[in-house]
Amino acid sequence: MPKFFKKRGKSAGLTPGTLVHIGERLMEKPKISIIDYSPGKLEEKTVESIEECCAYQEKPTITWINIDGIHQANIIEQIGHSFQIHPLTLEDIMNTSQRPKIDYFPSYIFIALKMFYWDEAEQEIAIEHISLILTDHTVLSFQEREGDVFNSVRERIKNKTGKIRKSGADYLVYTLLDSIVDQYFLILEKLGDKTELLEDALIKQPSPENLRVIQQGKRNLIFLRNAVWPLREVINKLEKDESKLIQKNTKLFLRDVYDHTIQVIETVEALRDMVSGLMDIYLSSVSNKMNEVMKVLTIIATIFIPLTFVAGIYGMNFHYMPELSWKWAYPVTLLVMFLIGLGMYFFFRKKKWL
Amino acid sequence: MPKFFKKRGKSAGLTPGTLVHIGERLMEKPKISIIDYSPGKLEEKTVESIEECCAYQEKPTITWINIDGIHQANIIEQIGHSFQIHPLTLEDIMNTSQRPKIDYFPSYIFIALKMFYWDEAEQEIAIEHISLILTDHTVLSFQEREGDVFNSVRERIKNKTGKIRKSGADYLVYTLLDSIVDQYFLILEKLGDKTELLEDALIKQPSPENLRVIQQGKRNLIFLRNAVWPLREVINKLEKDESKLIQKNTKLFLRDVYDHTIQVIETVEALRDMVSGLMDIYLSSVSNKMNEVMKVLTIIATIFIPLTFVAGIYGMNFHYMPELSWKWAYPVTLLVMFLIGLGMYFFFRKKKWL
Amino acid sequence: MPKFFKKRGKSAGLTPGTLVHIGERLMEKPKISIIDYSPGKLEEKTVESIEECCAYQEKPTITWINIDGIHQANIIEQIGHSFQIHPLTLEDIMNTSQRPKIDYFPSYIFIALKMFYWDEAEQEIAIEHISLILTDHTVLSFQEREGDVFNSVRERIKNKTGKIRKSGADYLVYTLLDSIVDQYFLILEKLGDKTELLEDALIKQPSPENLRVIQQGKRNLIFLRNAVWPLREVINKLEKDESKLIQKNTKLFLRDVYDHTIQVIETVEALRDMVSGLMDIYLSSVSNKMNEVMKVLTIIATIFIPLTFVAGIYGMNFHYMPELSWKWAYPVTLLVMFLIGLGMYFFFRKKKWL
Amino acid sequence: MPKFFKKRGKSAGLTPGTLVHIGERLMEKPKISIIDYSPGKLEEKTVESIEECCAYQEKPTITWINIDGIHQANIIEQIGHSFQIHPLTLEDIMNTSQRPKIDYFPSYIFIALKMFYWDEAEQEIAIEHISLILTDHTVLSFQEREGDVFNSVRERIKNKTGKIRKSGADYLVYTLLDSIVDQYFLILEKLGDKTELLEDALIKQPSPENLRVIQQGKRNLIFLRNAVWPLREVINKLEKDESKLIQKNTKLFLRDVYDHTIQVIETVEALRDMVSGLMDIYLSSVSNKMNEVMKVLTIIATIFIPLTFVAGIYGMNFHYMPELSWKWAYPVTLLVMFLIGLGMYFFFRKKKWL
Amino acid sequence: MPKFFKKRGKSAGLTPGTLVHIGERLMEKPKISIIDYSPGKLEEKTVESIEECCAYQEKPTITWINIDGIHQANIIEQIGHSFQIHPLTLEDIMNTSQRPKIDYFPSYIFIALKMFYWDEAEQEIAIEHISLILTDHTVLSFQEREGDVFNSVRERIKNKTGKIRKSGADYLVYTLLDSIVDQYFLILEKLGDKTELLEDALIKQPSPENLRVIQQGKRNLIFLRNAVWPLREVINKLEKDESKLIQKNTKLFLRDVYDHTIQVIETVEALRDMVSGLMDIYLSSVSNKMNEVMKVLTIIATIFIPLTFVAGIYGMNFHYMPELSWKWAYPVTLLVMFLIGLGMYFFFRKKKWL
Repeated sequence: MPKFFKKRGKSAGLTPGTLVHIGERLMEKPKISIIDYSPGKLEEKTVESIEECCAYQEKPTITWINIDGIHQANIIEQIGHSFQIHPLTLEDIMNTSQRPKIDYFPSYIFIALKMFYWDEAEQEIAIEHISLILTDHTVLSFQEREGDVFNSVRERIKNKTGKIRKSGADYLVYTLLDSIVDQYFLILEKLGDKTELLEDALIKQPSPENLRVIQQGKRNLIFLRNAVWPLREVINKLEKDESKLIQKNTKLFLRDVYDHTIQVIETVEALRDMVSGLMDIYLSSVSNKMNEVMKVLTIIATIFIPLTFVAGIYGMNFHYMPELSWKWAYPVTLLVMFLIGLGMYFFFRKKKWL
Repeated sequence: MPKFFKKRGKSAGLTPGTLVHIGERLMEKPKISIIDYSPGKLEEKTVESIEECCAYQEKPTITWINIDGIHQANIIEQIGHSFQIHPLTLEDIMNTSQRPKIDYFPSYIFIALKMFYWDEAEQEIAIEHISLILTDHTVLSFQEREGDVFNSVRERIKNKTGKIRKSGADYLVYTLLDSIVDQYFLILEKLGDKTELLEDALIKQPSPENLRVIQQGKRNLIFLRNAVWPLREVINKLEKDESKLIQKNTKLFLRDVYDHTIQVIETVEALRDMVSGLMDIYLSSVSNKMNEVMKVLTIIATIFIPLTFVAGIYGMNFHYMPELSWKWAYPVTLLVMFLIGLGMYFFFRKKKWL
Repeated sequence: MPKFFKKRGKSAGLTPGTLVHIGERLMEKPKISIIDYSPGKLEEKTVESIEECCAYQEKPTITWINIDGIHQANIIEQIGHSFQIHPLTLEDIMNTSQRPKIDYFPSYIFIALKMFYWDEAEQEIAIEHISLILTDHTVLSFQEREGDVFNSVRERIKNKTGKIRKSGADYLVYTLLDSIVDQYFLILEKLGDKTELLEDALIKQPSPENLRVIQQGKRNLIFLRNAVWPLREVINKLEKDESKLIQKNTKLFLRDVYDHTIQVIETVEALRDMVSGLMDIYLSSVSNKMNEVMKVLTIIATIFIPLTFVAGIYGMNFHYMPELSWKWAYPVTLLVMFLIGLGMYFFFRKKKWL
Repeated sequence: MPKFFKKRGKSAGLTPGTLVHIGERLMEKPKISIIDYSPGKLEEKTVESIEECCAYQEKPTITWINIDGIHQANIIEQIGHSFQIHPLTLEDIMNTSQRPKIDYFPSYIFIALKMFYWDEAEQEIAIEHISLILTDHTVLSFQEREGDVFNSVRERIKNKTGKIRKSGADYLVYTLLDSIVDQYFLILEKLGDKTELLEDALIKQPSPENLRVIQQGKRNLIFLRNAVWPLREVINKLEKDESKLIQKNTKLFLRDVYDHTIQVIETVEALRDMVSGLMDIYLSSVSNKMNEVMKVLTIIATIFIPLTFVAGIYGMNFHYMPELSWKWAYPVTLLVMFLIGLGMYFFFRKKKWL
Repeated sequence: MPKFFKKRGKSAGLTPGTLVHIGERLMEKPKISIIDYSPGKLEEKTVESIEECCAYQEKPTITWINIDGIHQANIIEQIGHSFQIHPLTLEDIMNTSQRPKIDYFPSYIFIALKMFYWDEAEQEIAIEHISLILTDHTVLSFQEREGDVFNSVRERIKNKTGKIRKSGADYLVYTLLDSIVDQYFLILEKLGDKTELLEDALIKQPSPENLRVIQQGKRNLIFLRNAVWPLREVINKLEKDESKLIQKNTKLFLRDVYDHTIQVIETVEALRDMVSGLMDIYLSSVSNKMNEVMKVLTIIATIFIPLTFVAGIYGMNFHYMPELSWKWAYPVTLLVMFLIGLGMYFFFRKKKWL
């Protein structure tokens, strides 16, 4: 389950700019892959050390450097050194509890955001911290682990005739943002389906276990909300950008992502409404079930108590009880008891209590 | 039931501007109809291919092209090509999960919005995605299926003396918006009536089925709210418009639609208040019914338990129980029992427990 | 009961500016009355046709034309024609579901607002749609039915030395607004008293009928709120007015009405808080009553069940039960039973269960 | 108990500026006291008629005129006449339901606000309407009754070396505001203590009477909130003031009062949170108590019912029941019954039901 | 437990600027420690009297004076005198109920804020009032008691190569703010852990004691919220600062603290959501437990009541009951009873009531 609090204990009180990884280590060794492209050319490779990336800085082609694994401070530091990244930016890249934000520096734009995917093993949403750095013709992207969310972007770059090949680094950043926001829709569909299933389950057969699931659903939506509200702000700032890094043409596309973000927000808020309604449904459903049980049991008791009373009467030991010696007394008494029981049964039926 | 999530799975990760229909396919083959009019002239026809529309572009008359059915990418693409529509706009036209918005392009204004109607078969509200494009003297409207909401507009155009015949394309857009917002009032009346009926039903005879209906009501109102809040923004922007496509005279009418939109918002919010009150009523009503049942049952048991105790006493086998041999013991005991029962009955009555 | 939705079915889809009365018809025949005054002169009369009003337009005196009854389209149309009123304004006058608003036109200011009074017959608040039109030296007021809310204004005009006689048409509009807002305080007092009475009733003797009353109270407050929030905006705009129709001196008085409107809003919000608290009180009060009953009943059962068990023991038919033949067995058993019962009673008392 | 609604019935419909006292009459005869001071001089006296105050208007010294009792229209009118106060201001002074506000007039600033004190007799908060008028070198203060809240200010003025003696009339107004806001802290402490006591009482021994106390607490906090939110606005406006009546030096002190006001607001909101939590605690506490009782009672019944059944078996009159004639049957049966009871008792204990 | 209200009784009504300590006295004697440093030099000492500090004012080095203990008015007064601090600032330093704020004075910036730490002894959060004063090259910090939160800052200053040694007094203030905000994360982790533990406990074994813990949790979060919202404002103002006391370079770091503050706010709001959900869980969990108990008990009763009735029948004393004299009657009856009981047991099982 995602945690509200990444342990910061070690980091608290350190000089700012000290590089400490906050979060779980999700892979062994960071992996650096480079895609360098221009309308006519494409080069893709995986490199071992960061120095190999520097060569691309002088070329006029668009270079996308993707780093999977952000837990090794020395690698992040090397990158910072090679690309003149401010120490506070490096700190934010390694701090997986950093909230989405955009920072403008003289030579680059830094974007931090969150990606969500569905962890089938844990049956739970998982959050990944993503950082993007946009410089003149280079894009750096940092992920916590290897994933397939950027694969479609890679495919599109390989397609020689695609718009992306003819556009600048800013369009690449847009494409990455777009694929991340698209991912949000998938996770919301998942949560939406689960909510509807849960709602049905709650009405049919509520169990105390559902309580935990509802709380977890609430928590997931808080995570999504905390990720997507600031993301909206990030994209809005990017669209309103006045630096030269974002071209006017790309802004139209950023507007489109912005729209999607608002749609995600609306859906998250709608889901929050639904989930908080689930608690009411659970409570009322539990009490309905309980009431049904108690009603039936009480009715059984109510039918037999008067009958037992009648039996009690003829169990009294008075010497002068004329009925006792009457020959048909016993069967008549049984019949009367049966009729009383039947009468009560129909009375309860008529009252719709049964 | 309308869904929060249209399946986007196929579309996620595609190049933006790729035309993919998101939503259900509601009709077989798109239908294109044209009304071309000027104060003195009127031409109405249904065309097979989009090329036939192009001829009207050069005429000075007002041309309204209505397309029912937005699931065929090639048709939308042709239209985009003929009227120089931006690919992102075409994408929004085909994406039925697009939220209401207004986009300004150099040569046209694009408006996306939602229409609601009551689906008698499903006893449920249905949502339709509507797109409007306003150029100099042409209006394009896109609907998911054939419907009768624009019929009154057609009638008004046919009326030779109507204001609409003398006004520009912007006035036609206003008329279309107005007829859609009027539709909202009808759906709100429907929902309002259903809410009041439900409230009565809840007080009289609550059933677990009502839970589902209340949740559904909440969800419908969320849909309406998500449709109408951004619509307000859309109309407001249209009214404040500074492009030359909207004439000053028409803005007065747009102000009127704006007022209606706010009225819709107020009614939606009021209904939301009412519906969320229904849950309380349901819960309290269920518990009232249950309490009534349990009280009556418990009172029956309470009356008979002491009587059974009395019978139990005279069922004891002690050798020395003088009452047993007294001749009137039995009838007197019965009488005493009857009086105890009667006394308790009146006591409960007096206490207003019965 | 006021309705959220006036039937608009007939009106939906009509050309804007088509005059259709939306709402109930509250009187037979509209009544037009005129008060024409200047510091030194006063003329008051009831006219049959709207033409008689036109004569006053050329005089420099202040003319107040009050129309009771807004359901006859032809009369409203005539007025529109005589005073050059825009068709959209006429539509708003006849549409009783129009929310409070202010509209500026070149030659007049149009104000729509709501009046509330207490309908003693229905024991319910009633809403009336009021429209005011302020031109240079004429005020037109439209009411749904004859009422006495403007009587005090008439009295003040008749008083030769009053400020109103010396002031312009804008001051007359202020006076009318002021008398309507004063009316709000009366209705709030009424609702406040009823809420307090209901609160007492709920604690003393809750009944399912109260549920309906609480819901109705909520709905009334929603009506008031929807009427008074936009009214605040209306008066604020009037006060900030830059047309020449409102004189600077009158604005000070409008500020005063504005203050009153905010006070009304605060009281409405406070009442909403109180009313939504009533639901909790109702639920807890019902459950308190129920608990009391169940507790007493259960205690009676609990006392007798062990006693019945004792009686059961001595009802067993074992041959060797020495107590049975002991002479004092019976009275001693009765005594023991009595003591057990008494003991339990005091135990329950001590535990504060009784 | 403070009322939401002061009866305005008499006043509604009157000419604005007509002086009518709205509220309870709290003292017999208004009392007018004057303190006139300069750095070197101090004069304090109680006057009978307002004319005596006028003499001070021409002196350059600071004059503070305090009027206790605002129900006599003629006195307020005289003051208005002597100091050129606008009729609307006089109306606001006498209207105890006037909300806090600040009004700028050419020659003076008018401040209306609320004071709260604890009414020990009624065990309830009491609200007083206070008005302040600041002119060039005169301060007028109006209270509903004699009180001691301004005594500390009087003491400070008498202290020859205090800052107040060297400062202007604006500093005196600040001092008065400060002493009123200080009073708010006292009332909040009181309400806070009572809330904590109530919380303890609710957990230990909930009673239906608490319901009323909680509702009253809510209402008190609404009063405080309605008084203190606009007060914040008042002080903010005073601090941002651009008239010459407030000196720059005093604004630093007003900033300080502003801070205190925000602190009051925060505390009020926090208390509102706590009080609305009390309702939940009450409900859960009542149901806890009830559950405890029902559980114990049901357990008693549950233990005895099987035992009674056993006794019932041996009360049957079958001729062939071998146990009946066995010598140890009776004691063994008793023993078995005892063991069954004991077993059930320990079973319930183990299940933590007892 | 932290209190909403520090007793202000003594202070209310005093001349503003009168130095009175509001809050608990947490240590005996204030302790003044000085760290004076420049890139090349470091001096650290504890002084007895405030005069010793003054010498540093003339040196160009950075001087950090930390005062632990703020309850002695004369010491605070001396400091105020030595460093030309405004009396209102001194009042704010001593008033532990002062909310976070920033005040600009010509020669210094004053910052008031709150620190939170976990009081292991009381198992409760504790709040400390911290004040910072930044002048040209001096930083004054005031704490209520000796603590270790600033130790890491001291360590960093002692480190000769650290950035802090090369930077100005503004960077020192940033460092202090940063270490305080880092402390917030620790306290939030603590509260988060406790909330999750509580949630588990509530589902497993709810007890009335939990109610108190939930209320306390709510209250703690209100404290945090009231501390951190204005802190955000403080840091924002500091970052936007236009005085010369904050250098441009430091603002980048302040932006970083600002980000952390927003993260704290988000976490506090998320925790508030979780905690208010706990109440629902508690209520539902209590009622689940109760229902389980009542159901089992009722089922036991329900099984035995019909059996007792059968026994009652054969306890009747009718003379003609043929079964009584049948030899196998007794064992058969017992068998029938057993089968009825078993049947009911399996019926309840099948219905999932057991």
